[in-house]
Amino acid sequence: MYIHQVAAYLPDFVVTNEHFTRLNGLASEWIIERTGIRERRKAGPGENTNTMAIEATRRVLAQAPDFAAGIDLIVGATYTPHDTIYTLAHAVQRDLGINEIPVVSISSACSSLLNAIEIVEGYFALGKASRAVVVVSEHNTAYNNETDTMAGHLWGDGASALLISKERLAPTDLRVTEVVTGGAAVVGKADEAVTLKPVEKGIVMPHGRDVFTHACTYMARVTEQLLVRQGLNVEDVTFLIPHQANLRITKNVLKQLDMPIERAVSNIEQLGNTGCAGAAIGLGDTWNQLREGDRVIITVFGGGYSYGAMLLER
Amino acid sequence: MYIHQVAAYLPDFVVTNEHFTRLNGLASEWIIERTGIRERRKAGPGENTNTMAIEATRRVLAQAPDFAAGIDLIVGATYTPHDTIYTLAHAVQRDLGINEIPVVSISSACSSLLNAIEIVEGYFALGKASRAVVVVSEHNTAYNNETDTMAGHLWGDGASALLISKERLAPTDLRVTEVVTGGAAVVGKADEAVTLKPVEKGIVMPHGRDVFTHACTYMARVTEQLLVRQGLNVEDVTFLIPHQANLRITKNVLKQLDMPIERAVSNIEQLGNTGCAGAAIGLGDTWNQLREGDRVIITVFGGGYSYGAMLLER
Repeated sequence: MYIHQVAAYLPDFVVTNEHFTRLNGLASEWIIERTGIRERRKAGPGENTNTMAIEATRRVLAQAPDFAAGIDLIVGATYTPHDTIYTLAHAVQRDLGINEIPVVSISSACSSLLNAIEIVEGYFALGKASRAVVVVSEHNTAYNNETDTMAGHLWGDGASALLISKERLAPTDLRVTEVVTGGAAVVGKADEAVTLKPVEKGIVMPHGRDVFTHACTYMARVTEQLLVRQGLNVEDVTFLIPHQANLRITKNVLKQLDMPIERAVSNIEQLGNTGCAGAAIGLGDTWNQLREGDRVIITVFGGGYSYGAMLLER
Repeated sequence: MYIHQVAAYLPDFVVTNEHFTRLNGLASEWIIERTGIRERRKAGPGENTNTMAIEATRRVLAQAPDFAAGIDLIVGATYTPHDTIYTLAHAVQRDLGINEIPVVSISSACSSLLNAIEIVEGYFALGKASRAVVVVSEHNTAYNNETDTMAGHLWGDGASALLISKERLAPTDLRVTEVVTGGAAVVGKADEAVTLKPVEKGIVMPHGRDVFTHACTYMARVTEQLLVRQGLNVEDVTFLIPHQANLRITKNVLKQLDMPIERAVSNIEQLGNTGCAGAAIGLGDTWNQLREGDRVIITVFGGGYSYGAMLLER
């Protein structure tokens, strides 16, 4: 299984830390020190989870026009639904005009990218598909309370789409060597630490410390497990792309793994926490720097709790 | 792959047609004539998609206590989320106390049951799981506008859980012979005919005729396709369990298939449209009537649009 192309869509509108200084009295330096975040994007009027997913898919297909004709599976992922019936995967299907192929949208919170890819892996193994679009999209600002001084300044909007094929299509494709995912709903305050109750109150994160601790533990541990399973050392990994939740979490994970911080891919400074789209956007940012033989590990952690790791090789 | 057990959870509170006569002036006979629905269930205070999923899972495990220890995958399905981050699958994981196994929730609207089972099939094919819980749960009344004279009287609440194993565990297990799913977002008014926009306006169905037409067409067609693929005739099928959306749709599908109406399983009269839970609840209702050699086809259609069919054999 190979990732053939990846592309992101980011809304134009930039929300700087000064917005939250005015709103909540939080100094920009205070936000940067605690999270790394300097600015984030906000979807414009008329934009939503589905429109961003469509736009990301159009962009990735513009990079690989030949792929479109063979698409036989669409997996969407989001925890910020615009519509839970006409889901982002369905919106992408309608835009592509490819009917009667398996189409489903999923959520395992900020970990959904890896669950989506693992689901694709399953369809490929069954022989039910061979060319998939995975599209991850989050419209956090639709569910975020900006006046929440705990977490209101963390979230940003964005989307990314990946083209995944069973066989290698180009020398620059990234081989998906292994995907591991897990739910960790049993530990800590997983049932209340990060929640998005659409009817009641949107996205909240009342137990940041519990999230922080488990995010650091799980991303480091599952990365180590993946390395052991693959007979690799941290030196064999060119880039680590952790879930883009907080720069302090990234630094903690890198330290645990004894990996130089330069090898971490980070977009949280400019984008904030873009949920399950963050790591995919990071992969897109890194794409052109990768050389033959390079290895990338994407590791994620999300509310629920959920976690995962994936090894990619060029 | 085998379905080992199935069990439902239905809230106690019954909403009769007279409620909608009082509210909207719709006569009970008018509702029955157009939909078959006589009453539906409504979740009580404190109940939601997640609590109903937990309760259905507890009930199915009470029927097969030995299964619990081996659970290595949980797939939840709903379009009526209580929480899109701590999803119903995560809530079930926490209740089960089984950590660090793949856990994900999905939506392909009313078709999600078959997508969930197909995803399980993929995990089994990959060797990443061998005993799964699939749990489908809908809290329609949380998103429904009861004063909507088009569709307010259609929806009911309910959940069902299925235990699925790679190997046969008991003689009464149902073999999952084949699952077919598809998105049909390209046809008709799929993008607006049934939508659930949590932030904007809940669940609405402004184009009932478009839904009706495509539901009839797709459920009949995919059932026929499945029969042809399996070398079976309609006489070989003991029960057909269509998505429980409308008794007139069920009758239309049976007529197209030239199948006697007695072979259709129906719970819509008592439960209304329970979304992706309806067909699973119907399977539970039918379970004890099935004899060795009997065949069941579940066929579904949902907003998005989405459709599917699955052949089961005892």
